[in-house]
Amino acid sequence: MTDALYLEDLTVGQTFVSPTHALDAAQIKAFAGAFDPQPFHLDETAAKGTFFGGLAASGWHTAAITMKLLTATTPGIAGGLIGAGGEISWPQATRPGDVLQVTSEILEVKPSRSRPERGMVTMRSETRNQRGEVVQVLVSKLVVPKRHPG
Amino acid sequence: MTDALYLEDLTVGQTFVSPTHALDAAQIKAFAGAFDPQPFHLDETAAKGTFFGGLAASGWHTAAITMKLLTATTPGIAGGLIGAGGEISWPQATRPGDVLQVTSEILEVKPSRSRPERGMVTMRSETRNQRGEVVQVLVSKLVVPKRHPG
Repeated sequence: MTDALYLEDLTVGQTFVSPTHALDAAQIKAFAGAFDPQPFHLDETAAKGTFFGGLAASGWHTAAITMKLLTATTPGIAGGLIGAGGEISWPQATRPGDVLQVTSEILEVKPSRSRPERGMVTMRSETRNQRGEVVQVLVSKLVVPKRHPG
Repeated sequence: MTDALYLEDLTVGQTFVSPTHALDAAQIKAFAGAFDPQPFHLDETAAKGTFFGGLAASGWHTAAITMKLLTATTPGIAGGLIGAGGEISWPQATRPGDVLQVTSEILEVKPSRSRPERGMVTMRSETRNQRGEVVQVLVSKLVVPKRHPG
């Protein structure tokens, strides 16, 4: 963590690229069984007659994998990746066989007025599959510490 | 699914209450190990010196449990719970021992102009712990089929 980034190190337009994650049907079904047990996330045959037309990952599974990829992105943020919230959308389904990768861009860096030791960073993270298609867009607000408070 | 709700059955102000989910440290660590391996989600001692001051669930774990509780809420929505996206925030941390429950309210019901067989519903879901404290607010856009298309 010696090269971890503080608020002072972040600038608008800076980008970060994550490692990749290969998704398969077993992972999709395991996550869905625990957290989103709907037919289109659990069973190929049952999924055919649904909105998705075939097995698709839960959007929350895509979000969780995105988080895993963000935590594996270097350099990291000092104190860790701490999100206060954000906006999320899933422009298209994540499917078995997809290889996911996250590209993030800093949109805003804002020191806190009330808390001199930290600030808020807005980051846009696009999760793409192996064909470059965007399967998730997350615009998140992150709590980031300052290297030199005050 | 005979009493599943279609777009015509949903009205602004309608509310739904989910079952509950009891969260413990083992679940928090298991989710974090798979998707959000940061010290404050993995280890009580390491968590003490962090922003959270103690073990806390990943926000994405809270989101996943919320989804589980929404899928277990009756009556369900015809065709399942299919989200296009939404806004999420975590006003406070989810902790070991928390018992989570989700209360949802319909904010908007909007038939699609281009797709006569369905519409978009905006729903606000508040996830609370056993003390009634809100640990997550999710305002989601759901794709909901019509009972009588066109």
